[in-house]
Amino acid sequence: MTKINMRTDLALETREQYKQDNVEISGVILEENKVDGGDIKITTVIIENEHGEKAMKKPKGNYVTIEAMGLREIDDAKRYSITKTLKEELKKLIKNDSGKRVLVVGLGNRDATPDALGPRVIKEIEIGSSIYAIAPGVMAQTGMETAEYIHALVKEMSPDLIIAVDALAARKVNRLNTTIQISDTGICPGSGVGNHRKEISKRTLGIPVISIGVPTVVDAATIVNDAMDKLIEVLSASAAFESLKSSMENMDMYEKYQLIKEILEPAGGDMYVTPKDIDENVKNLSIILSDAINMALN
Amino acid sequence: MTKINMRTDLALETREQYKQDNVEISGVILEENKVDGGDIKITTVIIENEHGEKAMKKPKGNYVTIEAMGLREIDDAKRYSITKTLKEELKKLIKNDSGKRVLVVGLGNRDATPDALGPRVIKEIEIGSSIYAIAPGVMAQTGMETAEYIHALVKEMSPDLIIAVDALAARKVNRLNTTIQISDTGICPGSGVGNHRKEISKRTLGIPVISIGVPTVVDAATIVNDAMDKLIEVLSASAAFESLKSSMENMDMYEKYQLIKEILEPAGGDMYVTPKDIDENVKNLSIILSDAINMALN
Amino acid sequence: MTKINMRTDLALETREQYKQDNVEISGVILEENKVDGGDIKITTVIIENEHGEKAMKKPKGNYVTIEAMGLREIDDAKRYSITKTLKEELKKLIKNDSGKRVLVVGLGNRDATPDALGPRVIKEIEIGSSIYAIAPGVMAQTGMETAEYIHALVKEMSPDLIIAVDALAARKVNRLNTTIQISDTGICPGSGVGNHRKEISKRTLGIPVISIGVPTVVDAATIVNDAMDKLIEVLSASAAFESLKSSMENMDMYEKYQLIKEILEPAGGDMYVTPKDIDENVKNLSIILSDAINMALN
Amino acid sequence: MTKINMRTDLALETREQYKQDNVEISGVILEENKVDGGDIKITTVIIENEHGEKAMKKPKGNYVTIEAMGLREIDDAKRYSITKTLKEELKKLIKNDSGKRVLVVGLGNRDATPDALGPRVIKEIEIGSSIYAIAPGVMAQTGMETAEYIHALVKEMSPDLIIAVDALAARKVNRLNTTIQISDTGICPGSGVGNHRKEISKRTLGIPVISIGVPTVVDAATIVNDAMDKLIEVLSASAAFESLKSSMENMDMYEKYQLIKEILEPAGGDMYVTPKDIDENVKNLSIILSDAINMALN
Repeated sequence: MTKINMRTDLALETREQYKQDNVEISGVILEENKVDGGDIKITTVIIENEHGEKAMKKPKGNYVTIEAMGLREIDDAKRYSITKTLKEELKKLIKNDSGKRVLVVGLGNRDATPDALGPRVIKEIEIGSSIYAIAPGVMAQTGMETAEYIHALVKEMSPDLIIAVDALAARKVNRLNTTIQISDTGICPGSGVGNHRKEISKRTLGIPVISIGVPTVVDAATIVNDAMDKLIEVLSASAAFESLKSSMENMDMYEKYQLIKEILEPAGGDMYVTPKDIDENVKNLSIILSDAINMALN
Repeated sequence: MTKINMRTDLALETREQYKQDNVEISGVILEENKVDGGDIKITTVIIENEHGEKAMKKPKGNYVTIEAMGLREIDDAKRYSITKTLKEELKKLIKNDSGKRVLVVGLGNRDATPDALGPRVIKEIEIGSSIYAIAPGVMAQTGMETAEYIHALVKEMSPDLIIAVDALAARKVNRLNTTIQISDTGICPGSGVGNHRKEISKRTLGIPVISIGVPTVVDAATIVNDAMDKLIEVLSASAAFESLKSSMENMDMYEKYQLIKEILEPAGGDMYVTPKDIDENVKNLSIILSDAINMALN
Repeated sequence: MTKINMRTDLALETREQYKQDNVEISGVILEENKVDGGDIKITTVIIENEHGEKAMKKPKGNYVTIEAMGLREIDDAKRYSITKTLKEELKKLIKNDSGKRVLVVGLGNRDATPDALGPRVIKEIEIGSSIYAIAPGVMAQTGMETAEYIHALVKEMSPDLIIAVDALAARKVNRLNTTIQISDTGICPGSGVGNHRKEISKRTLGIPVISIGVPTVVDAATIVNDAMDKLIEVLSASAAFESLKSSMENMDMYEKYQLIKEILEPAGGDMYVTPKDIDENVKNLSIILSDAINMALN
Repeated sequence: MTKINMRTDLALETREQYKQDNVEISGVILEENKVDGGDIKITTVIIENEHGEKAMKKPKGNYVTIEAMGLREIDDAKRYSITKTLKEELKKLIKNDSGKRVLVVGLGNRDATPDALGPRVIKEIEIGSSIYAIAPGVMAQTGMETAEYIHALVKEMSPDLIIAVDALAARKVNRLNTTIQISDTGICPGSGVGNHRKEISKRTLGIPVISIGVPTVVDAATIVNDAMDKLIEVLSASAAFESLKSSMENMDMYEKYQLIKEILEPAGGDMYVTPKDIDENVKNLSIILSDAINMALN
């Protein structure tokens, strides 16, 4: 079946799609570690070259994923241990930060809860003589491309490093508010790879860009697609419908997309799947992320 | 196919489920009206007797539904015309309100955006010598059943009428933020019918209860279910799989429920489908509802 | 000089007015303690009898004041030590709390920053099977007297104890956000002493009421009055104007009140003096108070 | 008496100080108009040359003040008429705006209520292909001088005009939330005149800057000063103390400043006088200002 390219911002999920298909990918290295008695899992995906870039549809660089169910809990000890882990992974990517001028950027829309993670983290960043913090808002609010906005401030303030915080979209609901992704490859919103007006990266800004993201939503289309795939899988297991799977594989992407549209389209806009307690989740996440950034920079 | 009882708070949607199956329901009357050149559709479902109650799984009484795509738009003229329609339907259900003491109750959690509609409406209610307005919060915030909370205030203040505003769950995404339901039957949250501790109704409080609700979320399980149904429908249309539909009808509710759970469960909590611009929607809806209530009571 | 009765909610400030005048008050006991190396000062004013009540214009009972400049700082260690002190003083007044059902009430208007302390504390109270938490709002929002509102819930839920949190007005700016007052005498808003419709106390509710308050504003009239008094004091010190003080003492309250009104009246409403960073202060205070209450009750 | 230079952001108030002293100022023109049956008063102060600049301590240009008690009321008709007046005065200063690219800037701290006017106006600005809107925050939040921040965006986006919205400080409480000042002279926060790092003006940015401000606070020191002046004035009227006024005039600025400090200093930070209902006021003002700007630009 031609795959519908379901959106994920997590390199880990892109990698998992291949693993399911038992594909080894040249140019992509995978390392796994567990800390805190196994409660926290750290996975590093390194995309080494162009072949890896193409396979992963993500730019070359390091993608560190911290997975911890504790992110959803209110246990202070667990939170502290996640915060410390995040701080340490962050410091590895920052490398030598002595004397660095750092611009912390909180991407997203402060008035849309699942998208407000970046702006809320910015509120808690400790400003110092060489630390700047801004939440530029989204284009619908400002009229400016976010990347242009940041480009302007970088030219004026000449920081040595950008740390960008953003809410992400995941492929699977169990990622929501349990996973933190850190990377040193910059941010290419949507289909923005190679689009200089939209890319926030070393290539366009001339300084390293470390991004920290947490998935807070799954696209509703993804859930609908998963539901259909799951059903096909179950049905194909019975003798009567074993031809179903191959039949579905012949259904072209457009037909499947039409089905999904029929279910979601009438709402007349993008639909997201999000946990009931997303407001509480974003509040907790913004404390963990800002604490870790403050600790890493001071 | 054994139906999975997908949650809807809209009598109109319950009625539609039957219409699809070409069932006439005794004890249930349906009236339709269009105003504003057809832009606003008013449907009244009257459940007359116990037979209707059983078929609709909702208590006896009047359910008025106002449907208007204009609810999502920022057109002032359209909004005003919806506000006026709501005010008029509200006045019909209130009947003679001269000298009445009215308690307006905003149900829901002010700190969870899709659930904040009630509390936000309360903020805009014009308090008068005989108009009270409260947003009691939810049990997780207060430790009290909402119905007990309201019962206590009714005993103290002796109002003649309650108007309760609440965010609802719908079956279909195209209902979200386009539909207002008004009823005079009280509110029975969840499976709360007949549960005196939870019911907010004339039966439990001794005074008429008019409820106004707008669906702001669809349960994610509903979307997954719809996706599966849609796929079966499409597949059954081809000769190779025509036995699929009857086969699915033999799949028992539990099996299907297991499939849905496998997709959504890992998230470890209730998942909702909601529009990307829900914060903006709830803000607009709270203005329309509060304006209409203020106009109806003054 | 006839004193203009400048409003203070702090028993400590009422006591200080007398101390300045070198008056010993029968029926009023004063105890002072310092903890945390002197950084935290605990003053207990005990009003023992009717004579004390009359002198202090406050009902009989215990008034504990915790003073700590650290309340304004962001030092985690200092905050923790204030939180612990508050918890301990609270436990002394609660006495035996085993098995008690407790209703925590956050008084004030959540939409007016200096008055939002109570509602913000409520947001952080940990609800348990015997702990309830409500923020009833103010009469302008609900149409109900706050005391009647609480009375209704007390009748319904039958708690054994009320803890009421409120923002206070102080006489002196140096009290703002540095002082916590705890008392076991209930709350009599404004001139509400003896007014059963307004009083929140054991007398009206039948159960003990412990109140926790922090001054967040000074009435602007108080500042104007202080400015005039200070000037008179300075001028009277010089030979040329030594008759000024006695002359002012003959100026009646009404004349002075007129002067104050001329300066503040044109604003057409109550004016408050408040620190520039009041939003930040209220946020910090609500964490300290809610932490202390949660610790005292669990 | 050496005047303590009490801070005011209103040119009208600076002018009034001279009027009291019966001084005619060369280089300063004053025009008054009334509209809406006298409910709205429009005063234009034109500073024509360097002599005027020196006398007024404000840069050359037009200062239009709209005074209307209706700003505080909830009367829709009055609000609409103020909005229209503001729009028209704004259009006069914008001059020919056809095809202009406009950057609307909301100055101030969104998390401190009286200072949040600018950011709240920005939330309601209608973005178009040639209209940008930003709320840069304050230096304590971002680590950057606001003027540098704006300079960076101006270089990147090349707008033809800036409209800057800000909350102001007034000299008199009756100005609070009743007065709108529009000027075409840019903004020089504090003692920032001539300080290129802080000035937001045509001189530093190369494009016209129109500023719109509403006073939302009075410095507490101002109120204390006024209280003392008023008392001296009253006392000097009696024969016994007629030498008081001249005596006070000999009191040097430093002594008076010390008195004020003794009253306010202990609070350990800037203190403001603000109306009790400032949250409501700022909400209303942000609607009027954003409506007027949207109407003027479309």
